[in-house]
Amino acid sequence: MPRKLLEDKLKALLAEDVGQGDVTVSAVIPRDLVVKAEVVAEENGVAAGIEESLTLAQAVGLEAKAHVADGEKIKNKQVLITINGDAQTILTVERTLLNMLSRMSGIATQTATLQAKLQNAGMKTKIAATRKSAPGLLYFDKKAVTIGGGDTHRLHLDDMVLIKDNHLAIVGGVETAIKKAKAEASFTKKIEVEVTNDTDAQKAAKAGADIIMLDNFSPTQAKATREKLKKAGFSNVILEVSGGITSENLLEYAKAEVDIISVGALTHSVKALDISLEITKPK
Amino acid sequence: MPRKLLEDKLKALLAEDVGQGDVTVSAVIPRDLVVKAEVVAEENGVAAGIEESLTLAQAVGLEAKAHVADGEKIKNKQVLITINGDAQTILTVERTLLNMLSRMSGIATQTATLQAKLQNAGMKTKIAATRKSAPGLLYFDKKAVTIGGGDTHRLHLDDMVLIKDNHLAIVGGVETAIKKAKAEASFTKKIEVEVTNDTDAQKAAKAGADIIMLDNFSPTQAKATREKLKKAGFSNVILEVSGGITSENLLEYAKAEVDIISVGALTHSVKALDISLEITKPK
Amino acid sequence: MPRKLLEDKLKALLAEDVGQGDVTVSAVIPRDLVVKAEVVAEENGVAAGIEESLTLAQAVGLEAKAHVADGEKIKNKQVLITINGDAQTILTVERTLLNMLSRMSGIATQTATLQAKLQNAGMKTKIAATRKSAPGLLYFDKKAVTIGGGDTHRLHLDDMVLIKDNHLAIVGGVETAIKKAKAEASFTKKIEVEVTNDTDAQKAAKAGADIIMLDNFSPTQAKATREKLKKAGFSNVILEVSGGITSENLLEYAKAEVDIISVGALTHSVKALDISLEITKPK
Amino acid sequence: MPRKLLEDKLKALLAEDVGQGDVTVSAVIPRDLVVKAEVVAEENGVAAGIEESLTLAQAVGLEAKAHVADGEKIKNKQVLITINGDAQTILTVERTLLNMLSRMSGIATQTATLQAKLQNAGMKTKIAATRKSAPGLLYFDKKAVTIGGGDTHRLHLDDMVLIKDNHLAIVGGVETAIKKAKAEASFTKKIEVEVTNDTDAQKAAKAGADIIMLDNFSPTQAKATREKLKKAGFSNVILEVSGGITSENLLEYAKAEVDIISVGALTHSVKALDISLEITKPK
Amino acid sequence: MPRKLLEDKLKALLAEDVGQGDVTVSAVIPRDLVVKAEVVAEENGVAAGIEESLTLAQAVGLEAKAHVADGEKIKNKQVLITINGDAQTILTVERTLLNMLSRMSGIATQTATLQAKLQNAGMKTKIAATRKSAPGLLYFDKKAVTIGGGDTHRLHLDDMVLIKDNHLAIVGGVETAIKKAKAEASFTKKIEVEVTNDTDAQKAAKAGADIIMLDNFSPTQAKATREKLKKAGFSNVILEVSGGITSENLLEYAKAEVDIISVGALTHSVKALDISLEITKPK
Amino acid sequence: MPRKLLEDKLKALLAEDVGQGDVTVSAVIPRDLVVKAEVVAEENGVAAGIEESLTLAQAVGLEAKAHVADGEKIKNKQVLITINGDAQTILTVERTLLNMLSRMSGIATQTATLQAKLQNAGMKTKIAATRKSAPGLLYFDKKAVTIGGGDTHRLHLDDMVLIKDNHLAIVGGVETAIKKAKAEASFTKKIEVEVTNDTDAQKAAKAGADIIMLDNFSPTQAKATREKLKKAGFSNVILEVSGGITSENLLEYAKAEVDIISVGALTHSVKALDISLEITKPK
Repeated sequence: MPRKLLEDKLKALLAEDVGQGDVTVSAVIPRDLVVKAEVVAEENGVAAGIEESLTLAQAVGLEAKAHVADGEKIKNKQVLITINGDAQTILTVERTLLNMLSRMSGIATQTATLQAKLQNAGMKTKIAATRKSAPGLLYFDKKAVTIGGGDTHRLHLDDMVLIKDNHLAIVGGVETAIKKAKAEASFTKKIEVEVTNDTDAQKAAKAGADIIMLDNFSPTQAKATREKLKKAGFSNVILEVSGGITSENLLEYAKAEVDIISVGALTHSVKALDISLEITKPK
Repeated sequence: MPRKLLEDKLKALLAEDVGQGDVTVSAVIPRDLVVKAEVVAEENGVAAGIEESLTLAQAVGLEAKAHVADGEKIKNKQVLITINGDAQTILTVERTLLNMLSRMSGIATQTATLQAKLQNAGMKTKIAATRKSAPGLLYFDKKAVTIGGGDTHRLHLDDMVLIKDNHLAIVGGVETAIKKAKAEASFTKKIEVEVTNDTDAQKAAKAGADIIMLDNFSPTQAKATREKLKKAGFSNVILEVSGGITSENLLEYAKAEVDIISVGALTHSVKALDISLEITKPK
Repeated sequence: MPRKLLEDKLKALLAEDVGQGDVTVSAVIPRDLVVKAEVVAEENGVAAGIEESLTLAQAVGLEAKAHVADGEKIKNKQVLITINGDAQTILTVERTLLNMLSRMSGIATQTATLQAKLQNAGMKTKIAATRKSAPGLLYFDKKAVTIGGGDTHRLHLDDMVLIKDNHLAIVGGVETAIKKAKAEASFTKKIEVEVTNDTDAQKAAKAGADIIMLDNFSPTQAKATREKLKKAGFSNVILEVSGGITSENLLEYAKAEVDIISVGALTHSVKALDISLEITKPK
Repeated sequence: MPRKLLEDKLKALLAEDVGQGDVTVSAVIPRDLVVKAEVVAEENGVAAGIEESLTLAQAVGLEAKAHVADGEKIKNKQVLITINGDAQTILTVERTLLNMLSRMSGIATQTATLQAKLQNAGMKTKIAATRKSAPGLLYFDKKAVTIGGGDTHRLHLDDMVLIKDNHLAIVGGVETAIKKAKAEASFTKKIEVEVTNDTDAQKAAKAGADIIMLDNFSPTQAKATREKLKKAGFSNVILEVSGGITSENLLEYAKAEVDIISVGALTHSVKALDISLEITKPK
Repeated sequence: MPRKLLEDKLKALLAEDVGQGDVTVSAVIPRDLVVKAEVVAEENGVAAGIEESLTLAQAVGLEAKAHVADGEKIKNKQVLITINGDAQTILTVERTLLNMLSRMSGIATQTATLQAKLQNAGMKTKIAATRKSAPGLLYFDKKAVTIGGGDTHRLHLDDMVLIKDNHLAIVGGVETAIKKAKAEASFTKKIEVEVTNDTDAQKAAKAGADIIMLDNFSPTQAKATREKLKKAGFSNVILEVSGGITSENLLEYAKAEVDIISVGALTHSVKALDISLEITKPK
Repeated sequence: MPRKLLEDKLKALLAEDVGQGDVTVSAVIPRDLVVKAEVVAEENGVAAGIEESLTLAQAVGLEAKAHVADGEKIKNKQVLITINGDAQTILTVERTLLNMLSRMSGIATQTATLQAKLQNAGMKTKIAATRKSAPGLLYFDKKAVTIGGGDTHRLHLDDMVLIKDNHLAIVGGVETAIKKAKAEASFTKKIEVEVTNDTDAQKAAKAGADIIMLDNFSPTQAKATREKLKKAGFSNVILEVSGGITSENLLEYAKAEVDIISVGALTHSVKALDISLEITKPK
């Protein structure tokens, strides 16, 4: 996203916190006082939101310099960003900046942990996000997953056809739904369908699904479906598993040759990374 | 907040997810088909976001009826809301509705758990939120804390003077800062100051702080400060502790007669409550 | 798109035309006068924008009833919509409603004409839009193409990877670009690449492009590329032609077995369909 | 319009196209790579939208330099603008910039062609736009007409009283309507009325209309009305013709001494001028 | 302005006052309690803002009924509007509604007082507003002047050419400026010019100004200019006086046959009419 | 408020006045002409809105330099600000800048006059604003009061609990209301209650109100209440008077030891300070 559009998004988020103005700052902090501040990690993790932090700081007229790039590992007490500028502005923007940075870094850290487990075992399987995000933060949550090495999955409702249980409850079977989708949807869209059993997975592949989401399949079930699909000549279909994934069974799914493991908790149950801001040169 | 203003906020959040339109729905779901759906809890907890869910549903033209009120305990598999209306609209709005409801219920559940621990021990101490929220969601996050029995704390930057470490780093001592605040801030604002030791706590009380935040005090330290304040005639000053609070030491702080225990994790590290939506009468 | 979100989009477009208020209406038209009006075609074509017209009319409190559905053929002098309501409001909204309806119907008519030519010849080739739209009207322009029987192609910049000449000028060859795209882009995205010669088309297929856009290929060249791809085992790759398409050579391209013929003029050089609004029962 | 307000309008149009971000650019184009690009005419015409292009480019942080001014004639292959800056940003903004520039230049070119025909014949008659614009683009469409040498006519609904057939259907006769308008409308507004016959034209002049729009008058009829008005002492009334104007009969209307010839097609049926952007120095 | 567009404007104004929610109402007023309220005049005046009040009340879901129309005289203690609905909503919206109603009624009252003075003396001279409004309230302030019997004058910067002292300081003389305006501005615009002496007034008329603003002319000077213009055959030019107008010399200006007396204080120095809201049936 | 957020607010206010563009400026003022201008006081007063003026000027790309700070006394003919930049832009922004500056300075001047009266008499009593502001201008109106030496009072509905007559009409007595407020509202909020007699004032203090607003109390009544409260041990309760305050009786209230005198007229009936802008170096 062009930085100038990102600026406007971030200023809108800041404005919510500012309300009619920061009454603490206007009461106790002198005007036109230039200070320095450091943004410091309070625990180990993976940095994400560095670009957002710089953009927000610059959007309100502060100088900001990053000492780490998005996606890099960071250590407790590491200085991530230094900021230089108007004291009132730094203090007013502090919390919005940290909220974004901590959330994005928390998401990236958790994604990277899961992804590392797969990579360390030599697997190509990808961790993916879902749309189970905090409302209004799809862009930032998805970006943080990418920074952590995962896949965004759909960005929102207009970029892929994803036929889920509730769609099927209305349309009828998997084949009808895919047939309709192929007829009606743009050729630019991949078509994914969620199935709850192997029979539907096979039907979906035959009907031309690009991606099949195996909902709550055990690793064994997933493996069986993958093999059956191969035998039927559907080697190219992308398999995604979703539901019941834990840090423990992750590798088993990967070994079942699924391509994508999607994890809602990455964005719906974020553990923010602890990051603080400290005024270092007060005057 | 008047429901019609809430509608506009929620529609803006929905619009982000919709983008140029839900391509799945337009490809596979018939137009003008009326169906029913149920919003169902998938685990125990405390409901929050029921009002937001009804408002959002109604804002897009759906009939929605709640079977539980915000703040009530809910059980796994309990039906929370029934919705009736256009199938395409229900499916498009499903994820935004669930994202809000799950997040708010997760926050309320965690708040209620902590608050219950205090109440069960006969304590009047209140759990409070901070401004460590997901960016853009201050209103909803704070409301969920209230629904869970906690206190919102400051809503944003304009409703109280809260002098923290970074302000003090610039202004100098606690007394100077409070003196400035009393001179400059509106009489309508309470003045809170964050202190890191008992000496500053005593100074703050003398200088006229309404609330004193004890930063990273142990329960023993907090207790000592409370007693010293009482002896010095500052019985009315409100004491808040922040930092290092765990579910385990919660009661010890309460026994130290602090009034407020603020917990950033309530809103910065939310565990969403698992809630789903199911189409029940497809046609 | 949920109708209530569409309402907000349309009201924003109306507001631009209204400015500080319709001074003609407030000077000469009585308040609270209910009248009827008819929206009437002034030439033959295909209706599109009927849903937008109804939504806009209802968004400003008018009753509106369609006598034709989006996508249906309409004849000169046919009544498309009847409106009932406040006279001042009808007259203020008239031009915005007609501008949208005429533009969308013009796009749908032209799309349908080209698409019919292909269908009448028994071809499955699809006419597609591009992003060469009027700024701000992507949603409506693309929807009109769909209504006319065409394909939207990409909706905007986030729903597919489309590597064009300018990307290639930076990245280098087709293979490098596709390789990068496959490594970096989400598994949910199709990858399309624009090529200017057969060699690159073959490379693109080998590198794994889902869609290949043949830029300014003659029908003969397109046919040769299609056959070579088939022989090389790339039967599934989708071929799109773009550039130099005319109503005359359309069928030749279709015979060359291209899947998609994209036509920028559908949306960048719209001929609006002539449609008017007439007050039928003045008092 | 102050450039900074124009920036905001243009960024909003860009944001629609960007959605959650340009996935092609983020997948294949390196970050922080500076390149050069040229905006090049692909056919002859009149430039319009140069200011908008520069403003948009600068609004997203690019350097842009125009080699032609709005209103100047341009030739096939002429370089109109050179751009220097971040490669990702240039590629993301390319289409929105070209869409605006092509549309505005198309409008200006067509306007200039008609206006030249009149000027070459020594006529002072002016070509004018109508409000039959693409929704949301009134400002840009009208500005393009001006650049092409035409008159904007009303900008929107608040800047003139224009009593049309539908108003008359409600109010009654031309005289009543004008009388009402003169009594109710601000003294700052001109009053125009649309008439379908000479009798009403004469009445309108007597009632004090500033401008009379002759709807679907032949050149002969227009000439007769003009002369009758002169004889009756209404030399100053401005005559506008509308409806049935073609490139062929344009001069005949001018010879009938009408002041204004308004042409809806200038903005409702735009033929975009072919303009492209090319990366010239990739690295 | 269509009521639905007005609703959105008013809701935006309300939202500023609401912030994160009305904490008084949520603390002390029960939910879902229906009450009645009356909006009551606390002094005599002219009602304006009744439509805005009804629209705002209805926009937030309240029933509201007016007992007086915009423009009618109201007396101390007269009930203007009755409202029925949710108690929390009424109390939250109370101040925004009263602020708008009091301001608009104050403007209308003052306008009506001046206008009555003129009418009682048998004069046709009109009182007019200027653009010296409260920022953001041009629409409402101008509408209130109209309701009070005055003229809006220009609504904003796009609806008339008004050449003032600062324009002349740049362009040079009155004649040059008008000549440029006639050549460049749309035929739909009236051209007004501000002059500071009779010589320039005569030049302006000759150059073709539609309206001449006599800046700080005494009544005697204005009268002399009017007569000279008549003799020179410029009977139709509209004369406006501005500057130094008082309630006392108003009639003298009218007797000098000026058409328009514009009074900035009508909108820049409003005396709000005292109006209150009272809950009448609490439960 | 961070200057960049203020910029966006001010640009939105400007945009309302600009509409589709300043037609005078585009007709008569050359493009890219740099001129100088001075903002000059036309009467004595207190400056407020200087920061807003600079911010607005800079937001549209002008250089602006203040010669006086917000809160300073200014004299008739004093130059407040000099502006340098594009002539078209200066003339377009002139009125919005002056409207804001004149209104804010008018408010500050009136506040300072009242406040000076108190200070000159050696009183510490503070003049305070109310929420009786022009709709949409709460931020600016409150800031002007502060600049004039007064207190903002509540900024909007979310920053204090203020229980007024209409709340009491629903809830019942003062004690019930305060009890509810103390139980339900956040510990961060002060609680104020409006009373109409001494009995309720005493009850309010006992129930724990932080601030008591004496509605329409005479100075004598206010004094009696103050003394009774002191005797009852409520020395710390803040007393505010409201209603019936005049410049004449101001000191009497102060002598009654009320802390706050709130004056609605400061913001609902503003007398704008006369300030003009003059082009000083035209070319």
